[in-house]
Amino acid sequence: MSKIAYLNSKFVKFRDAKVHIEDRGLQFSDSVYEVVAVFNKVLIDFDSHLKRLQFSLNELNINYKINAKKLKNIFEQIILKNNFKSGIIYLQITRGVQSREHAYKEKNIPNVIIYSINKKFNIPGKLFIGKTAITTQDLRWKRRDIKTVSLLANVIAKQIAKKKGAYEAILIDKGKVTEGASTNVWIVKNNTLMTHPSNYDILKGITRDSLKKLIKKDRLKFKENIFTKKQLYSADEVFVTGATSFVTPIIKIDNYKINKGKIGPITLKLSEYYFRNICCD
Amino acid sequence: MSKIAYLNSKFVKFRDAKVHIEDRGLQFSDSVYEVVAVFNKVLIDFDSHLKRLQFSLNELNINYKINAKKLKNIFEQIILKNNFKSGIIYLQITRGVQSREHAYKEKNIPNVIIYSINKKFNIPGKLFIGKTAITTQDLRWKRRDIKTVSLLANVIAKQIAKKKGAYEAILIDKGKVTEGASTNVWIVKNNTLMTHPSNYDILKGITRDSLKKLIKKDRLKFKENIFTKKQLYSADEVFVTGATSFVTPIIKIDNYKINKGKIGPITLKLSEYYFRNICCD
Repeated sequence: MSKIAYLNSKFVKFRDAKVHIEDRGLQFSDSVYEVVAVFNKVLIDFDSHLKRLQFSLNELNINYKINAKKLKNIFEQIILKNNFKSGIIYLQITRGVQSREHAYKEKNIPNVIIYSINKKFNIPGKLFIGKTAITTQDLRWKRRDIKTVSLLANVIAKQIAKKKGAYEAILIDKGKVTEGASTNVWIVKNNTLMTHPSNYDILKGITRDSLKKLIKKDRLKFKENIFTKKQLYSADEVFVTGATSFVTPIIKIDNYKINKGKIGPITLKLSEYYFRNICCD
Repeated sequence: MSKIAYLNSKFVKFRDAKVHIEDRGLQFSDSVYEVVAVFNKVLIDFDSHLKRLQFSLNELNINYKINAKKLKNIFEQIILKNNFKSGIIYLQITRGVQSREHAYKEKNIPNVIIYSINKKFNIPGKLFIGKTAITTQDLRWKRRDIKTVSLLANVIAKQIAKKKGAYEAILIDKGKVTEGASTNVWIVKNNTLMTHPSNYDILKGITRDSLKKLIKKDRLKFKENIFTKKQLYSADEVFVTGATSFVTPIIKIDNYKINKGKIGPITLKLSEYYFRNICCD
């Protein structure tokens, strides 16, 4: 069975799913996206992803009306048609095709792309792994709160991580930690959890938000605070969150071991909470 | 005759020129480009554009070897096949198609896109027009010296200009002028020309470089200096340069008239020099 993707109202063979060379996503990164995790055929945080998608579309004035019911049906069809069990479903909406010029026509018809990618998650249990990270300069633009495909700075950072055999690149802006190249970064210090406040400087992660609720429920100490690279190195525990990372422990950053290179107790607890929440609700 | 584009070793009908949804240009803006002006079937500054393309490819480690002779032949074929007289030829090279993840495989096969877009230039003579500009915040990333399709900040700026009926959006970073959304910005004050130094903060324009040579030849006073928004407003003359703008006078910025709303003498002289240089060499 060949893989099936959804493109502009049609299900098509994945290999035939193509967009025109004047698609504005391709020529101007004039496009937004979401990555939704699927675990045992169940969509994780689907509604929250659509809510953020709506925010991104609004900020860029992209002419696409979300129909949540219709989109959910397409996602379920993608799972069904591909006999898809676990991984992510990728949704991208571009501003559509237009004769090339920077300024856009407000009435462009968007290109809508949806398809699945198999992926194994790092989940609590026997095979749960503490990962490594590197730090690198945050080269991104000033509207990191919008989930766009203007991801070249993230690509450069991830490639540095890959070359060094690390799982994630943690981005540093003027000595401060913003977030990971595709995750939010958390530290634990003296039993207090900390992550960057949600403003223009970071993407407000969906998993980040879900975890905040679990933290509140469990009455753990938590602050949304900016922290430095030095604080990162000297944290008791570090972990990252994201649609494909769930809650992933970071046990080494650059040349610094965190918690002596072992998964810390609060990270473990939260990863278990989060996983129980999505797997067995 | 239907329009012809070049895509990966083939000339194809423009409307059929498509790339796969997992092209990294579309998913990550992991792609570089050049815009080469064509005037009366003649390619302008072709070699300089290839040189900058090489720089962009190197900086991003994109696996594409430039063959200048072959590329020139393709450009000439595009002119011929489309009976193309004046406008631009757009060249985009993406890192190619890969199963979606931020980090890239070094051996990806790039997608190469080349096609022409008709355009009328603003050239010195009876119909030469002084244009208007607005200023807006420079939202771009920190590697503006690489000519990539991570252009969403430029799109936003140009849209603001379009809504206000202006030709160009001049980008302001912490009170300083960097460049236009698709041009370099120049001012004249007390007979001295000034433009932003070429560093990470701006794209080193090809037309900018050509003009610098003409300025030197004519022994005009010239400094590569950073200047403020205030200096911009109070300049004696302002103009912008670019592959599609040539030398274009700016006679009003936001609510401020420049040179009483008339094209200044140095701008006029330089636009004539530049035009003579490309039209009649």
